[in-house]
Amino acid sequence: SLARRCHHRSTAMLDVPFLPFCAFLGTLGLLCVAMVGAWCQHWREGFSLDGSSRTFNWHPVLMVTGLVVLYGAAALVYRIPNTWSGPKLPWKVLHGALALGAFVLTVLGLAAVFYFHNSQGTPNMYSLHSWMGLATVLLFSCQWAAGFGAFLLPWAPAWLRALYKPIHVFFGSTILLLSVASCMSGINEKLFFSLKNGTTAYELLPAEAVFANSLGLLILIFGVLVVGALARPSWKRPDSDSLSSRQ
Amino acid sequence: SLARRCHHRSTAMLDVPFLPFCAFLGTLGLLCVAMVGAWCQHWREGFSLDGSSRTFNWHPVLMVTGLVVLYGAAALVYRIPNTWSGPKLPWKVLHGALALGAFVLTVLGLAAVFYFHNSQGTPNMYSLHSWMGLATVLLFSCQWAAGFGAFLLPWAPAWLRALYKPIHVFFGSTILLLSVASCMSGINEKLFFSLKNGTTAYELLPAEAVFANSLGLLILIFGVLVVGALARPSWKRPDSDSLSSRQ
Repeated sequence: SLARRCHHRSTAMLDVPFLPFCAFLGTLGLLCVAMVGAWCQHWREGFSLDGSSRTFNWHPVLMVTGLVVLYGAAALVYRIPNTWSGPKLPWKVLHGALALGAFVLTVLGLAAVFYFHNSQGTPNMYSLHSWMGLATVLLFSCQWAAGFGAFLLPWAPAWLRALYKPIHVFFGSTILLLSVASCMSGINEKLFFSLKNGTTAYELLPAEAVFANSLGLLILIFGVLVVGALARPSWKRPDSDSLSSRQ
Repeated sequence: SLARRCHHRSTAMLDVPFLPFCAFLGTLGLLCVAMVGAWCQHWREGFSLDGSSRTFNWHPVLMVTGLVVLYGAAALVYRIPNTWSGPKLPWKVLHGALALGAFVLTVLGLAAVFYFHNSQGTPNMYSLHSWMGLATVLLFSCQWAAGFGAFLLPWAPAWLRALYKPIHVFFGSTILLLSVASCMSGINEKLFFSLKNGTTAYELLPAEAVFANSLGLLILIFGVLVVGALARPSWKRPDSDSLSSRQ
């Protein structure tokens, strides 16, 4: 449309090509996963399934990998220019499959913390972190089920798809931001729990605290860049509101 | 444009009028301010300037009032349909003045926590909450100064305004979300600090914990609704990319 072309011209000086940006984002996402793994392995005694704090360690790793990085990859599928022409169904399946993978990791991440709490006799679901995190996961499950029902199953009418699509897009970004906000409070509270004594008190900023705070800021930057990329007009499918997108 | 009209038609069933939505948002914002004040007054011994934890209490109240609620009001100014015609300068001044008010409250909120820490001999700037919060305030100060220089001072050329405007809009939403994420980790850590013993331990969910967790969720909903309202295509100024917006 004319409006879109005018907009493009006025922001042409800011144009960044999508694929190099995506490669940068992928590197940043892998760095976040590597860092959360390294944090748990190097400072928090690694991983196990015995109900100890080494079982808890699966929680941050699975949440960052699933609900942040893999979720972000799923959200960006329709920004790949190759998806803009040709049959849409394979891309829909890829989007849904990546989101389902993210959801499975998320549920395992929840299972890790519930199993740890129950093994230790600690109550579940009391902190603001847990309330926000569970709300995020519940929204994500509704988002996945509604997206599957409306866009992948064949019988949803076109008007329902057109009505639901902006809602799905809005909650797509919202859930990622809630998930990043949950990571921030989770890392913060884990450091207060773990770093209490002597020379490793959180307030003395030992190496672990600097490392995990930096991880937090990288997760934040990853989330903001994904949501920014999703919102960028020139990276959206040109016919994003067309009813012909029905398979 | 045609694209915009087509989009409007397909989402007409979801159309909410802006002003009632704004009234709801204003009520929600005032409720957040009232609740953070009530939390500090009722459970955390109220307010003072003596360097005790009663001085700290200004920190959450000023941050929620300034960096969330007043900031949100400033961000929404250009979504008021009255601003779409007639001279733009008064609305620019209102937007800048509300943002400046938010910034002043934010700086006072920072002063409260630094003064409290220094009076108690507690280190500053070690937690992820503090890193994220300070990054948010620094971004906000750059955003205000750059917005003032580019849009209110008369000598910025039109091409620079057109180039900077999408960046200003993007960081406008981003800063609000960072600020909400900071509130979440701040409320979470304050409850872990304050609720430790006996029947008021955080994990037993005493009334204060339910109240402050609920406050956190309301702040989250407020932030998501403001950012959603900002992103909604039908609530944007129709000529939002026109170069004629120069005063």
